[in-house]
Amino acid sequence: MKNIKLILEYDGTNYNGWQRQKNGVTIQQTLEKALSNLTSEDVKVEGCSRTDSGVHAKEYVANFKTNATIPPHCYREALKSRLPLDIVVTKSEEVEDDFHARYCNIGKTYCYTILNRELPSALKRNYTYHVRKKLDIEAMKKACAYFIGKHDFSAFKSLGSSTTSSIRTISDLHIETNEDEINIFVTADGFLYNMVRIIVGTLIFVGTGKLKPEDMKDIIDSKERKRAGRCVPPTGLSLEKVFY
Amino acid sequence: MKNIKLILEYDGTNYNGWQRQKNGVTIQQTLEKALSNLTSEDVKVEGCSRTDSGVHAKEYVANFKTNATIPPHCYREALKSRLPLDIVVTKSEEVEDDFHARYCNIGKTYCYTILNRELPSALKRNYTYHVRKKLDIEAMKKACAYFIGKHDFSAFKSLGSSTTSSIRTISDLHIETNEDEINIFVTADGFLYNMVRIIVGTLIFVGTGKLKPEDMKDIIDSKERKRAGRCVPPTGLSLEKVFY
Repeated sequence: MKNIKLILEYDGTNYNGWQRQKNGVTIQQTLEKALSNLTSEDVKVEGCSRTDSGVHAKEYVANFKTNATIPPHCYREALKSRLPLDIVVTKSEEVEDDFHARYCNIGKTYCYTILNRELPSALKRNYTYHVRKKLDIEAMKKACAYFIGKHDFSAFKSLGSSTTSSIRTISDLHIETNEDEINIFVTADGFLYNMVRIIVGTLIFVGTGKLKPEDMKDIIDSKERKRAGRCVPPTGLSLEKVFY
Repeated sequence: MKNIKLILEYDGTNYNGWQRQKNGVTIQQTLEKALSNLTSEDVKVEGCSRTDSGVHAKEYVANFKTNATIPPHCYREALKSRLPLDIVVTKSEEVEDDFHARYCNIGKTYCYTILNRELPSALKRNYTYHVRKKLDIEAMKKACAYFIGKHDFSAFKSLGSSTTSSIRTISDLHIETNEDEINIFVTADGFLYNMVRIIVGTLIFVGTGKLKPEDMKDIIDSKERKRAGRCVPPTGLSLEKVFY
């Protein structure tokens, strides 16, 4: 049996997230259907992350096992006509048998994009989160430093999360601006449920002056969800890179 | 009666263009419905251009007349909750009675975006046109020069166009690149049916080597549609600016 690794770019707007579910169309199901159709097998795909409804990916990693004789690098082209235009396979290759997209990854980078201007945007509405009030970017940058390192991020985890440990290591958290867009990049060895979106919500509180950069330490130490900012919408979030 | 000018940003993906029609939802109809609902009048909106299905706008200009007592600058906010998220009014103001969005404009700038890379993009699919073959941008830039000036652009007009004269003046046509995006900006006093999309299709032939930059002169002089390139898809096209 061959183990095939896929790299995907997708627009999550019209999907109920990655993971297969009974109600609603997901990216995993759409991909499994296309692969099953192509290989005439009942293909199960493993994904690197359970992205939520409306979250996008620029370099998502998935893998599946198959007995099909299709040359591994040909899946990319073969899937082109079998997938909707909002899911694109950018690479396909054979990997070692023990490669697993989710268990083997050692880290991921997400980017969250805030559109910081008076008016919302018709063209960027699905790819940004609109914040009307002018944000203090220098204060937000100062706040980023407090997150870096190994911490218990319980304060930045939504209820309903099933993970046992809330300790994660953030190796990078930085901000890049581009005209009226604020891009927040965060890299960690793993993420708790809604962790990026709650960190961004907290940074926005710093940007509006509701919190000070130095408050970040207390919030992290408190491990209390109510001390952190709100969980911002999924539209601004995109999985940028997965590390193995 | 007040004459109100609106500036709009819209994502044309889900509309059958600007102009009202019997079948399918258009931007004009959507706007008229929202304004009629707001003013309790049967509002008719004039637009600066009949953008096609799938074409976008960053600064579209429209106007309408009304007896409503709503302060002119308040239409922007009042329409926010009455319009879908893919149509945003960015400015509203009262203008002189004889202002007409279409008849009074003296020129417009469009931008056409080509995504020039091996693979299509899931995230940019509605806002770019994907060209796989690497384009020779220097040759395309040279070709641009031939279009500038006052010419009969019959070769760059789709059939079905009802305009009597095909003479237009292109004051600017230039290319800007941004990573794998090629942005073609064109400014003219007016545009024939599909003119921008056929000019871009012709420039792509130059970029692939099928035509030479100096062929542009002959094609323009021929006034024959079949001599020019193909009409590229609407997705890459956006109205950038209107001049009065």
